[in-house]
Amino acid sequence: MNYPEVIRNLIECFKKLPGIGEKSAERLALATLKLDDEIINLFSQSLKDTKTKIKRCNICNNLSEQDKCDICLDENRNKKIICVVQEPKNVIMIEKSNNYNGMYHVIDNLISPLDGINPSDINIGALKQRIEKDKVEEVIIALKQSIEGETTTLYIAKILENTGVKITKIAQGIPYGTDMEYIDYLTLEKAIEDRKEIS
Amino acid sequence: MNYPEVIRNLIECFKKLPGIGEKSAERLALATLKLDDEIINLFSQSLKDTKTKIKRCNICNNLSEQDKCDICLDENRNKKIICVVQEPKNVIMIEKSNNYNGMYHVIDNLISPLDGINPSDINIGALKQRIEKDKVEEVIIALKQSIEGETTTLYIAKILENTGVKITKIAQGIPYGTDMEYIDYLTLEKAIEDRKEIS
Repeated sequence: MNYPEVIRNLIECFKKLPGIGEKSAERLALATLKLDDEIINLFSQSLKDTKTKIKRCNICNNLSEQDKCDICLDENRNKKIICVVQEPKNVIMIEKSNNYNGMYHVIDNLISPLDGINPSDINIGALKQRIEKDKVEEVIIALKQSIEGETTTLYIAKILENTGVKITKIAQGIPYGTDMEYIDYLTLEKAIEDRKEIS
Repeated sequence: MNYPEVIRNLIECFKKLPGIGEKSAERLALATLKLDDEIINLFSQSLKDTKTKIKRCNICNNLSEQDKCDICLDENRNKKIICVVQEPKNVIMIEKSNNYNGMYHVIDNLISPLDGINPSDINIGALKQRIEKDKVEEVIIALKQSIEGETTTLYIAKILENTGVKITKIAQGIPYGTDMEYIDYLTLEKAIEDRKEIS
């Protein structure tokens, strides 16, 4: 004996999501039985809509319901600065930090030859075109602090070398509110090296 | 700026599930963008189907796609034994343990006056009727080892006192493969008290 087919199907679907194993999938599938009809309908519809309605912005490659995303369409944003990020969620994270008014460029992948991701798999040609077209003054590279992130950062810097654009990367250091004892030595070394004068 | 509306809706839906907070919901919603169309369609449909197709068995209250569940319909099962469990998932767990061939009775709630769950909220009237109708010989109570579980177990035993049925509860003890040092003292005390002669 097992669950009815419908529930087994739902368990299988939940298991396709990252970090959801057999037990969690079972728990989530059973929990949906207790949701209101309204939520179930929205849930079911939204799942379909994400596949049909969500595209990539044809300028910056961010998620969008139109051909161009809201940020690229926003006339009040500073087109002279482009921040390079890996994923659409990084755009939202920086937007929530509430201090950046430039544009974005989502590259989707970090260079990682071992995983078969080569320089040709990151969306840099389009970035170069944007820099020329919009006379961009600064490219801020905001990729993950990892070997792949560093490799990709250096690669992008190299590719953009001759465009004359200023290339920066976001600061490494100790996160706000974190005890120093929980920080790895590499970060600590960087934080001391990049120390700032108190003015 | 935030995610497109479709994705925000999906995040809200994931957040309605137990144990899924803002960050996890965001991660899961973005992960659905990478699922195949086939899975998305199944996912979307299964969510709706769980609400429309899944009922409760009108004999044992287990989940079912028909009026009676597969277990209650199975002529090969022993109708003289009923195992009382809290939730449908407990039925599946016992089924997977592969050694029980009796019937079930799902009571949905454990008595917990502090949470407003009183003896009238557990599905015991129907159990009493089944015992009389099917001339049941044994009721195995398999509820959670907790104050609420114990209270409910004692309550059920009391209610069934005059039916003449044998009432048992599943053994407390040390789980298979668990080191004794990770077991609480209450369980250890019970395990020693309920020791079995090696035959």
